[in-house]
Amino acid sequence: MSDIAPAEPWSVRQAGLSEHALTTAGLRQAESIFALANGHIGLRGNLDENDPRGMPGTYLNSFYEVRDLTYPEAGYGYPERTETVVDAPNGKLIALTVDDEPFDVRTGTLRLHERVLDLRAGTLRREVEWVSPGGAEVRITSTRLVSFRHPSVAAIRYQVEAPGRRLRIDSDLLANEEQPEQRDDPRAAATLHHPLRSEGHEADPAGGLLRHRTRRSGIGVAAAVTHVCDADLAVAVMPDRVRCTVTAEGTVRLDKILAYSWGADVSADRARADRDEAARLGFDELAARQRAYLDEFWDTADVEIDGDPEVQQGVRFGLFHVLQAGAQAGPHPIAAKGLTGNGYDGHTLWDTESFVLPVLTYTHPACVGLALRWRHATLPKARERAAELRLAGATYPWRTISGAECSGYWPAGTAALHVDADIADAVLRYVAATGDHDLLRDCGIEMLVETARLWDRVAHTADADDGYHISGITGPDEYTALVDDNVFTNLMAQRNLRGAAWAAEQYPGPAHALDVTADEITRWRTVADRMHLPYDEKREVHQQAAGFTRLEEWDFAGTKDEDYPLMMHFPYLDLYRKQVIKQADLVLAMVLRGDAFTVEEKARNFAYYEARTVRDSSLSAPAQAVLAAETGHLDLAHDYLAEAALLDLRAGGESSGDGLHIAACAGAWIALVMGLGGLRDTDGRLSFAPRLPRRLPRLRFRLRWRDSVLCVTATPGEARYEVTGDPLTVRHHGEEIVVRAGEPVVRSVPAVTPGPVPAQPAGRAPERRAEALERA
Amino acid sequence: MSDIAPAEPWSVRQAGLSEHALTTAGLRQAESIFALANGHIGLRGNLDENDPRGMPGTYLNSFYEVRDLTYPEAGYGYPERTETVVDAPNGKLIALTVDDEPFDVRTGTLRLHERVLDLRAGTLRREVEWVSPGGAEVRITSTRLVSFRHPSVAAIRYQVEAPGRRLRIDSDLLANEEQPEQRDDPRAAATLHHPLRSEGHEADPAGGLLRHRTRRSGIGVAAAVTHVCDADLAVAVMPDRVRCTVTAEGTVRLDKILAYSWGADVSADRARADRDEAARLGFDELAARQRAYLDEFWDTADVEIDGDPEVQQGVRFGLFHVLQAGAQAGPHPIAAKGLTGNGYDGHTLWDTESFVLPVLTYTHPACVGLALRWRHATLPKARERAAELRLAGATYPWRTISGAECSGYWPAGTAALHVDADIADAVLRYVAATGDHDLLRDCGIEMLVETARLWDRVAHTADADDGYHISGITGPDEYTALVDDNVFTNLMAQRNLRGAAWAAEQYPGPAHALDVTADEITRWRTVADRMHLPYDEKREVHQQAAGFTRLEEWDFAGTKDEDYPLMMHFPYLDLYRKQVIKQADLVLAMVLRGDAFTVEEKARNFAYYEARTVRDSSLSAPAQAVLAAETGHLDLAHDYLAEAALLDLRAGGESSGDGLHIAACAGAWIALVMGLGGLRDTDGRLSFAPRLPRRLPRLRFRLRWRDSVLCVTATPGEARYEVTGDPLTVRHHGEEIVVRAGEPVVRSVPAVTPGPVPAQPAGRAPERRAEALERA
Repeated sequence: MSDIAPAEPWSVRQAGLSEHALTTAGLRQAESIFALANGHIGLRGNLDENDPRGMPGTYLNSFYEVRDLTYPEAGYGYPERTETVVDAPNGKLIALTVDDEPFDVRTGTLRLHERVLDLRAGTLRREVEWVSPGGAEVRITSTRLVSFRHPSVAAIRYQVEAPGRRLRIDSDLLANEEQPEQRDDPRAAATLHHPLRSEGHEADPAGGLLRHRTRRSGIGVAAAVTHVCDADLAVAVMPDRVRCTVTAEGTVRLDKILAYSWGADVSADRARADRDEAARLGFDELAARQRAYLDEFWDTADVEIDGDPEVQQGVRFGLFHVLQAGAQAGPHPIAAKGLTGNGYDGHTLWDTESFVLPVLTYTHPACVGLALRWRHATLPKARERAAELRLAGATYPWRTISGAECSGYWPAGTAALHVDADIADAVLRYVAATGDHDLLRDCGIEMLVETARLWDRVAHTADADDGYHISGITGPDEYTALVDDNVFTNLMAQRNLRGAAWAAEQYPGPAHALDVTADEITRWRTVADRMHLPYDEKREVHQQAAGFTRLEEWDFAGTKDEDYPLMMHFPYLDLYRKQVIKQADLVLAMVLRGDAFTVEEKARNFAYYEARTVRDSSLSAPAQAVLAAETGHLDLAHDYLAEAALLDLRAGGESSGDGLHIAACAGAWIALVMGLGGLRDTDGRLSFAPRLPRRLPRLRFRLRWRDSVLCVTATPGEARYEVTGDPLTVRHHGEEIVVRAGEPVVRSVPAVTPGPVPAQPAGRAPERRAEALERA
Repeated sequence: MSDIAPAEPWSVRQAGLSEHALTTAGLRQAESIFALANGHIGLRGNLDENDPRGMPGTYLNSFYEVRDLTYPEAGYGYPERTETVVDAPNGKLIALTVDDEPFDVRTGTLRLHERVLDLRAGTLRREVEWVSPGGAEVRITSTRLVSFRHPSVAAIRYQVEAPGRRLRIDSDLLANEEQPEQRDDPRAAATLHHPLRSEGHEADPAGGLLRHRTRRSGIGVAAAVTHVCDADLAVAVMPDRVRCTVTAEGTVRLDKILAYSWGADVSADRARADRDEAARLGFDELAARQRAYLDEFWDTADVEIDGDPEVQQGVRFGLFHVLQAGAQAGPHPIAAKGLTGNGYDGHTLWDTESFVLPVLTYTHPACVGLALRWRHATLPKARERAAELRLAGATYPWRTISGAECSGYWPAGTAALHVDADIADAVLRYVAATGDHDLLRDCGIEMLVETARLWDRVAHTADADDGYHISGITGPDEYTALVDDNVFTNLMAQRNLRGAAWAAEQYPGPAHALDVTADEITRWRTVADRMHLPYDEKREVHQQAAGFTRLEEWDFAGTKDEDYPLMMHFPYLDLYRKQVIKQADLVLAMVLRGDAFTVEEKARNFAYYEARTVRDSSLSAPAQAVLAAETGHLDLAHDYLAEAALLDLRAGGESSGDGLHIAACAGAWIALVMGLGGLRDTDGRLSFAPRLPRRLPRLRFRLRWRDSVLCVTATPGEARYEVTGDPLTVRHHGEEIVVRAGEPVVRSVPAVTPGPVPAQPAGRAPERRAEALERA
């Protein structure tokens, strides 16, 4: 698709520029894949010279514009405004002219064009050999990085060799860049033209600074640029542009340093200081620090898998992008597309708490604490929203940048109250895994208590004998809405209520400050203990929501391949009425609340829902991989693992062009570590149940647990547990083991005899990975 | 509210112009009440001189503009355009100047100002005695009519006496008049400024003609005006205006004649010819024909009620406006607001088939046939829509002018599939009452078959033992949506399926042409016979929809008066989740499908739903009146009767200002004739069960059935049945009786001992009419 070369373990390579790579779709996808970010700032992987391009993209976390939402038929509580990520001044632009001929990959002869995303160096490298139409032979190399250590800084090294030729480089920092037209897809972002108002510009000897402010949201930004170069250099500054022009003969090396400051405490001085400090360190030192940061990350986060090089590459690519989305997100949210594109308007959704944070909790927990503190910082808005909605406690938004609800279709947005329990779940997991009780005391308890209050208000009894119900809400599956007793929601609310009760008892002081009473705690436990779960006695399966298993069956046999994704070809009216599932819902409940199901229930439920799930969402395959593994269908787990791991890199359609699916990036890890590794963390206790499919002879993963790092190595017959740091007590296939530093524990893997392999809907089976590998 | 004088039996009088009457709200409401229309054209009851005014309004049925619908999050099948009624050139304008002082009710001294809507004459009369600021004494009378006999014609007689004064009258026909700003209410219409493009204008000696076309929908209109006057007259014509200026001394009489032609076969010649023919007849003859038309109507449609003069007036006012909405609607729809305002954008909704047509079927059946033929003419669009929605047969729009779906909130629009069964029900009722088998053969059968095919597709079985289900649709109650097995929908679909089967067997030729097979008919009957109705065994009531009785109860005690209507203060998320009902739903099912419930079920169901129905819709009280009467709660029936009868005339809030609630106008008749009179027409058999509340000593109503007119007179102890025309077999409280012309049948009314009076939600009891009458 995006002309990615055969898999390499630690890099992603684009060799050449095919015809497809130069289409808008090809350009867009590559720009996402090659995006560099650190959670704070993000640069899409555009070509240095900008053209051809799919979509530019210089993103600063939470730098957004607001726009009005208008409805054909408005209703009480509908959000009146939304937030849309907008481009900050683009500092990636480096245009080259050789003997008056502009360098353009579409002209002359491209002898070599290669781009490499280096997952250990944390850089995007480009090598070009070009012969201009006029016959000039030119060699260009560029290396780009967005610094993990210096979150406001990005840098580019640009080198040209063209012996005997006159070279001119125009290096720009450009605001209000022209935007491509929006795609006609509900998941795409609204295009805003000229969103920034200039507030000042200044020139330096080797660069300059632009100050702007968004027109409606009023967010200030200062963008500073400087250059280190051995050639002649001239600077011209206008309100929307700093242009630095370098002229040289035959060869030139230009190091370009960018720094940004924005938001409530925007400061041109800080942008300038950060830029100058980075320039003082120099490109080589920035690159060295980048590698050191990543070395540290991979030491405790790497996953090794033998037998499927593409999956090996995919899972590292995914982890790298998860890190890029979260590492320095700091006091801001982690968006569904990270900082790789403007899809979903740059909003964060439940994906973050349910898919991304679990991975980061075990691989890079520091940024999880900050992500949760961001949610806490938006608690006042969530409380206001709960009051507006006539609910109680806090109601977190379905999609947002600032914390305000930005969802324009309430049945699949605001009604998906589970986002509140997902946030509570992320708090509980993080606290258990890290022991960070400061966070729990400072803000975790408040989020747990306020979300528990929501559930306490929403849950109700009808007939005393069948417990508490949660009616008229929407679960994870977006092909149903406004259902009663969604099992996922009820079970996550149950965990939320119990977690709040536990936290309030752990910290009576903070609980008291939140007016939590003993009666309230008792009520939370009562509601949790008596939560109703709809079950179909006849079919012997749980119902995704009350009545689901008795809805009309979808006519899968009569549905054509081109009818997918179904939501683009069928009305919700049809989808909601029938047993057709966009994405794992009950199956995801069995992942996150596996403790609430017996082994037999899991097997029956998985088979039932597998036959009705079409995977029109990238959030689906990871959960299906986990349940496939747990129920012993290991080849199927491998299929879903591969689907998740290769989504953006090798399959990704149009929607990857708007930015990567960060949750699916996390999903590859989930499929491997929770699926094939069997990791579970129920009630803060680690357990594993490694088991490998035919084609994968070895899996090794590392994860962090409090002050230890655990390394698990699974082979077909056995699993080996090694620890660095404090001893750890974990379970291996149900058996409790204690692992001490320097004392690996080896256990055999019990055999499994699963039932028949569950079938997918006609035409919706995943690629059979084992067969694909055999063919290859 | 609108300064309506104490009730008079045959007229509606506004005496004086209070401070409130001159507010925008007061003006708007009076403009609706005093609107004149014939179903084809409609003129709001603005003052002749236009100012002060609430909202102008000259409506031509199906003269509309289109505008785009945009959604924050679009979805497959969402309508991309809507239709909005727009003002045709306004010919009501007659401005008077006396000795250079403009007549304005807000200046000088208003000695007399009276407006009378005469329900027998079919005119709006106005009398004014005004002393100008300069001391001129002026007497003005005007009489306005919109001709029932000459549907394209309206006429105004305007007379002035001001002895010794110089008089000038500017009589305008004005296009693209300035519009007031839109109210912030989802039920209000979108305001479109300057919607018409001029295509020509011409002057005549006493008037002129304007030709225009709507900009996007491209609908042409020709508006012609002429004047008959004994004074000097000058004409000036511009693209958007014909102005006729009359000057006189002391006294003047001006007859203004208007005629319109528009739509697909717009013709300036016809507008001119219709105008000239009306002018030739003269105002007096037009008025005489108007009265003759109405005499004929009232002869077979009047309802007399003793003991409550306001209700007496209200029910006639309602019938008059129902006639005004439907009489000459001809090949166009009957809108929810008739032609009295631009509320709901001028759309027709299910109100027409379920409330308006039943009344007209028994009082003015000719226009019902045409209304059904209009629905038939839109069948191609309904078929296209069904295909787009991946359904079968036909899916009629929730709201429309042209027949295209214009609903911008699908859960309460497109998902309310019951509109299809409502249309089928109207066909079956009309055919039974009139014996118009031409309509059945020509087009009724096609509508029955295509809507039956919809239900056949939508109904499904889950477990063989509990019949057919209809899932994921929305019933009449707008405080629930996307429910399973809404009893109203299931029962109406059942009738639809059976009606289609019956019609197909009656007319095998047309059925064959529609590819109806014997198997299909069998399947329709099977689905109908096995339709599931959810029932709560514990509470011993039907469930409005599956699970409804087990939803959380609404906290009525904690809901403040100012929180109503609830949809303006609570999100749908809250409303849909709980047992709170906007409008009769199961109760309406018991009205229209009373044959499907036992007497005991009706009593229990009514009590249960009464306690949860807040009547935030004007469609509610009529059905509640009917069930209150049927279950023996006659005073409560009187309460709801009065609520329906007085809604627009004496209670109506802001929403009456956008146009009258035509279905509520019909509802007063329904409450009286179906409620206190006990009329039912199940399976084409007429039955009655008259029974009067304490304060109403006598009820008499007439209705048409095939070639007979039946007159029923009820007093507390007995009922008298008289017929003109063919003999009629009807039931009286279950006893079959045959009534022949000249042979009245008298039967006693059996006593009833109802259970406890059902309670309404706290604060939502209707006004106790018996007590109000005692106080008065």
